[in-house]
Amino acid sequence: MTRRELLASLSLLAARAGPKLGINGARLREQIESLSVHGRPRGGGFPDGVSRIGYSDADIAGRKYLLGLVQAAGLKARIDAAGNIFVRKAGMENALAPVLFGSHIDSVPNGGNFDGDLGSLAAIEVLRLLGENGIVTRRPLEAVVWSCEEASFDGNALNGSRAAAGKLRASEMDGVSRGLTLRESMRRIGGNPDRLEQTQLRAGAFHAYLELHIEQGGTLDKAGTSIGIVEGIVALDHYDVEITGAANHAGTTPMADRQDALVAAAQLTLAVRQLVTQEPGAQVGTVGHLEVEPNAPNVVPGKVRLSIDLRDLSTEKLRRLGEAVRARAMAIGSQTKTQIALTQTQHAEPALASPEVQAVIHGAAEHLQLSTRSLPSGAVHDAQVMAAVGPMGMIFVPSVGGISHSPKELTSWEDCERGANVLLQSVLAMAG
Amino acid sequence: MTRRELLASLSLLAARAGPKLGINGARLREQIESLSVHGRPRGGGFPDGVSRIGYSDADIAGRKYLLGLVQAAGLKARIDAAGNIFVRKAGMENALAPVLFGSHIDSVPNGGNFDGDLGSLAAIEVLRLLGENGIVTRRPLEAVVWSCEEASFDGNALNGSRAAAGKLRASEMDGVSRGLTLRESMRRIGGNPDRLEQTQLRAGAFHAYLELHIEQGGTLDKAGTSIGIVEGIVALDHYDVEITGAANHAGTTPMADRQDALVAAAQLTLAVRQLVTQEPGAQVGTVGHLEVEPNAPNVVPGKVRLSIDLRDLSTEKLRRLGEAVRARAMAIGSQTKTQIALTQTQHAEPALASPEVQAVIHGAAEHLQLSTRSLPSGAVHDAQVMAAVGPMGMIFVPSVGGISHSPKELTSWEDCERGANVLLQSVLAMAG
Repeated sequence: MTRRELLASLSLLAARAGPKLGINGARLREQIESLSVHGRPRGGGFPDGVSRIGYSDADIAGRKYLLGLVQAAGLKARIDAAGNIFVRKAGMENALAPVLFGSHIDSVPNGGNFDGDLGSLAAIEVLRLLGENGIVTRRPLEAVVWSCEEASFDGNALNGSRAAAGKLRASEMDGVSRGLTLRESMRRIGGNPDRLEQTQLRAGAFHAYLELHIEQGGTLDKAGTSIGIVEGIVALDHYDVEITGAANHAGTTPMADRQDALVAAAQLTLAVRQLVTQEPGAQVGTVGHLEVEPNAPNVVPGKVRLSIDLRDLSTEKLRRLGEAVRARAMAIGSQTKTQIALTQTQHAEPALASPEVQAVIHGAAEHLQLSTRSLPSGAVHDAQVMAAVGPMGMIFVPSVGGISHSPKELTSWEDCERGANVLLQSVLAMAG
Repeated sequence: MTRRELLASLSLLAARAGPKLGINGARLREQIESLSVHGRPRGGGFPDGVSRIGYSDADIAGRKYLLGLVQAAGLKARIDAAGNIFVRKAGMENALAPVLFGSHIDSVPNGGNFDGDLGSLAAIEVLRLLGENGIVTRRPLEAVVWSCEEASFDGNALNGSRAAAGKLRASEMDGVSRGLTLRESMRRIGGNPDRLEQTQLRAGAFHAYLELHIEQGGTLDKAGTSIGIVEGIVALDHYDVEITGAANHAGTTPMADRQDALVAAAQLTLAVRQLVTQEPGAQVGTVGHLEVEPNAPNVVPGKVRLSIDLRDLSTEKLRRLGEAVRARAMAIGSQTKTQIALTQTQHAEPALASPEVQAVIHGAAEHLQLSTRSLPSGAVHDAQVMAAVGPMGMIFVPSVGGISHSPKELTSWEDCERGANVLLQSVLAMAG
């Protein structure tokens, strides 16, 4: 999107005064609630969450429900080689690159109702509403529902979007999860893994990519802000740490003679928090995984393995934090007479949102008289993969209490509707 | 033992000048090495340790080997109702209470060659040596090999000695370990669990109980001291701690909003060490067991369960330390926005060694010109059970590097012989 195109988009928004075209909030709510049945073994409410794992029977049932909505909108769906669902609505100038927008409908095990579902159903709803009102945009529009965005706790899959962007490694295709290879899983949802290359999105494949999503953090909820404008998806550095002390009898080993791996691990855990919080900014650092050996009440711990997860929009800040953690680990090792080995096992680059797309989202929210706040996304999203293909932007709505990946995940229906309206206005502004 | 008896014992030691009666170190070594074959699947040396679990086939084979040594010494063994092996050598005045001494031959899984074995074989060797030299003491002597002293890492069994002292609870008899009830296990090694009460040791059953054992800590080895005189077996307070925070996304949850259970656990782990080491003394404190939930690299820990093990000879000091830890836990809970529940799950009273028996051991070591050091035992021993029946004392010999319950457990053959000679001289002094 050029500067000129941005100005055109913003002026379109400004011109659209008077009675507003708006999302049917009740219908969106009904669809979110209907979709959530698929993957919820005992019906609605706590304590069961939604378990709609990518490629599972529940996922297939959810996709079928969604394809029914596409049909009800008088539109046709196309399943690409990776099983992603694309729904195109023709524009006036169909040679132009489309405005692409969507999300995913698979969930983590025991997850919530809103993560991915909101953005996917709102995207279909935007197309349906425009059709119902006989509105044809200059550019074509394309809604997308990416396949298998979520994975286990150990990392996110982003399978569908990565496949579409040509970022899925060949070696991953034969990896097995829940008894099936990824190749077999893609076939299960109507994909054709042998043709992945042919359906790949090239640079310029879309004018802009937009994704409406729940925040999954508590920043908007805490601030009472309706709309979050995502600056980018943070970079992530992951370290595995192995601390080797000496396992010994908890009764017979004097305190001064101990090489207690858990005492060293405790110091390192606190050092990570202290180093991350000692400077201003939104960076986060977590020791989420920790295992003790032999892990017996009457044995001084001989070994601890733990994980360190550092995230920030700035790769440089992460590098600096990683170095500070490493230096502190070495000091702790020598002070506690343990050996600390720290290995970086992952580095994910940040995916920055396009400033122009951010400006359009800001304009759309302003047009709707909604409060906004710019913020990074600490969670991964399909949008970060799309950022490598073309201009990307994300619209966040508040998560009550910042809770996500949990049956308690909650976004008010009003906020769902507000977010969908910001998506609608942004899409209209960018499609002309 | 009265003050008068003590003085008589000490004067006996002083009188025994000239050529000394001494343990045959080579024979003792040969026996320790022969016994260690039973329970070592692939023969001697690292990395296999000795796995002679109480009541197992290896234990039965080891007991058979030991009974052969008893026979070779021209003595007879008696198996009591709990499977303990007693070997009596008549004295001149057989109505007097015997001097009792011994240890155990069962081991932890993958344990060492010396823990229990040294004291058991040295006890038989003392009787054999006296027989070979035609020495008859005033009091009768009794060597004992207690059954199943060891258990899992979660606590020690002391089954044989507790049964002999009437401290085995009826409910324990039907507990199942390795597929057999304790009742069945006792039968397996020749015991008769239905007659436990009839063989129970009453107060006055022995003049004194002596146990030679490896230290299992590094105090003697570090100080270059040959003989440890045990002041008592420490008291133990055990606490289970449950820390409840809030599991949340490691990327989307700002540092200030976290209720990180592992950060609280790290602070508590360091607080235990700090509180235990801030005053002089031999007290120890250990966080040996720690479990995190959900224990995923990208989730802020929502729950941690950990154990706190505090030991010292003084019950009062332990109580005070426990209170200080509890107060600190409460402060950490409120500072980290977590809930910390601390429950005391075990309290074991200390078992003090008789000052008179300690004086005899000291006299015996002095007579043999061996360096000594008084110290508490941080590990549990059959001797602590015997302390409730009559005067008790323990002789420690150095463990190289303080390592025990490991294939690397090592005590030099010279130290084994020295310890056995101190046992011999102490027994002679007390038996008159």
